[in-house]
Amino acid sequence: MLPTPIAWTTTQTVRILDQTLLPTEERYLDLESVPQVAEAIAVLRVRGAPLIGIAAAMGATLAVRAAGSPPANGTTAVLAACDLLQATRPTAVNLAWALDRMRRRARAHAGTMDALHRALVEEATAIWDEDRMMCTRIGQAGLALVPEGATVMTHCNAGVLATGGIGTALAPIYCAHAEGRRVSVVADETRPLLQGSRLTAWELTRAGVPTTVIADNMAASRLRAGGITCVIVGADRIARNGDVANKIGTYPLAIAARAHGVPFYVAAPRSTFDPATPHGGAIPIEERKAEELRGLPGTGTRPTAPEAASIWNPAFDVTPAELINGYITDAGLLTREQLGRLDGALAQRPGG
Amino acid sequence: MLPTPIAWTTTQTVRILDQTLLPTEERYLDLESVPQVAEAIAVLRVRGAPLIGIAAAMGATLAVRAAGSPPANGTTAVLAACDLLQATRPTAVNLAWALDRMRRRARAHAGTMDALHRALVEEATAIWDEDRMMCTRIGQAGLALVPEGATVMTHCNAGVLATGGIGTALAPIYCAHAEGRRVSVVADETRPLLQGSRLTAWELTRAGVPTTVIADNMAASRLRAGGITCVIVGADRIARNGDVANKIGTYPLAIAARAHGVPFYVAAPRSTFDPATPHGGAIPIEERKAEELRGLPGTGTRPTAPEAASIWNPAFDVTPAELINGYITDAGLLTREQLGRLDGALAQRPGG
Repeated sequence: MLPTPIAWTTTQTVRILDQTLLPTEERYLDLESVPQVAEAIAVLRVRGAPLIGIAAAMGATLAVRAAGSPPANGTTAVLAACDLLQATRPTAVNLAWALDRMRRRARAHAGTMDALHRALVEEATAIWDEDRMMCTRIGQAGLALVPEGATVMTHCNAGVLATGGIGTALAPIYCAHAEGRRVSVVADETRPLLQGSRLTAWELTRAGVPTTVIADNMAASRLRAGGITCVIVGADRIARNGDVANKIGTYPLAIAARAHGVPFYVAAPRSTFDPATPHGGAIPIEERKAEELRGLPGTGTRPTAPEAASIWNPAFDVTPAELINGYITDAGLLTREQLGRLDGALAQRPGG
Repeated sequence: MLPTPIAWTTTQTVRILDQTLLPTEERYLDLESVPQVAEAIAVLRVRGAPLIGIAAAMGATLAVRAAGSPPANGTTAVLAACDLLQATRPTAVNLAWALDRMRRRARAHAGTMDALHRALVEEATAIWDEDRMMCTRIGQAGLALVPEGATVMTHCNAGVLATGGIGTALAPIYCAHAEGRRVSVVADETRPLLQGSRLTAWELTRAGVPTTVIADNMAASRLRAGGITCVIVGADRIARNGDVANKIGTYPLAIAARAHGVPFYVAAPRSTFDPATPHGGAIPIEERKAEELRGLPGTGTRPTAPEAASIWNPAFDVTPAELINGYITDAGLLTREQLGRLDGALAQRPGG
């Protein structure tokens, strides 16, 4: 059974799965105020670019009930809530995009407080529904790549826990599983934050997909051992020439896959394509704090690297287009050339 | 200043640096009995194949004083001690080889208990001295590969903490540093047991060599960023065709180095060459327990992978000879062809 990382409660507050406690504890939190939602996003109880956008949009609706009358106060409160929520993860494109939709809807409204609340719940639900459908289209586009008996290798978490639906990289696997195909997954643990072992392995095994966790540095040996059908990863940004920025560790996986003749696919919504970025070298790579590499974050263990050592901790790397066999998108399975022709269709929907 | 992972005390007991406490605490233990030495080896307070052999040989001497007279009891006690010590790490070739030397010396002895003790201390010290000299020869053989301003990338720990001298992979770096060259190191943290961040970064920064720790999956990005002079790693076994078994993660590092045109060297004593193994595919690869990948071992943290997930945890991988630019040995810097000609000289000294 697939987990539910986000939901409306019966009273239209926001229920989230606290991802910081996975994989050992599956605890749901009912968030009843905007600051509670902001905190949940800031400390990664909810993470994954699409899911953050959905959570923030749902969170913004909570501002209406907390505001007093007249209705104009409701709109003001929603706009303030959007600013607060957007500040939690300043670099997340989806977050800004989803909150802009909520702001527009709030500004356009001129009815009662109840009607404002209904309108905002409708908008947030629409954002979620669109994301869910986009995931399903990605899953269908990649279905043929995951035949009966397939073993797929993946990196980080681009699954149910990162989106409003069945994920991006994991979507073709869930679709194949739903069709009754026996499929299995090899998941890189994904240092430093271990989204592969903590999240991907958890959601897949919970859904009944046999999953084997390996350290990132074991992937090349696993590829050489044979039996890997393909590698599928997500993407944070795709440049005009097809280069892909994704979680650190994606690039060496692509190099190793090519060295062993295993096809390597990137699964992402069209909105991830950024024609304004000519190539991977133009994508800024966030460097994160050293503490993540001085132990396992959040575990309170003593440091594993000496204070005297420097740490280099880039959050993403760039995989050149020539190592990518195809792009699994909500517009189908695309080649690099087909991807380039999407330019015109891209202005519609930032984020994703 | 280089650390001292092993030493005789003034009363000829065995002083070790407890490596399980690194990098946060530098604590030395004086081991006064054979069982104490066996425990230290078994729980990895002392690790690294050459250093284990030295520690066990020194530990065997402690049996003499504990035995009563007549002298024959001393020999019997030493032989029993060797058996106990050898059982601690059954796969370590150096351990068996060093203890065989101690057994031969004990059996050949026919004098007083004091003379037996002196003979055994002499033999253990000789094993240590030979290893120290071998490290220095490896360092000299690789010195030209580490010029002024060099940045060397390495994996796992093949340094002072693994040997009786200046290490194998780190030996050329220490030699260059001692010559006054400004050199720096990029150290893979080396999942799952983190010997790179815990040990390599600690011993190098302590010696004044600037060191940057990265997660294993960041090495390809670091190689692409430029400025890496070469990669130097150790070896657990070298097959007749030049294929190298070493700590898991070595193979993807070699693939990435080749992809970026960075030379990749293996540093090891000649005794690591095993002409009886035709190629890397014939080297058995130890799989270790799943717990190592379900968190950071020894930290008592909650698991990071779900119970329902399988774990694949190979301790070593095999790097094919065609990815290796040279072998830095105690017989000089060798090509694959020169390595092959060493066959005849190899029967002398197993282990190393």
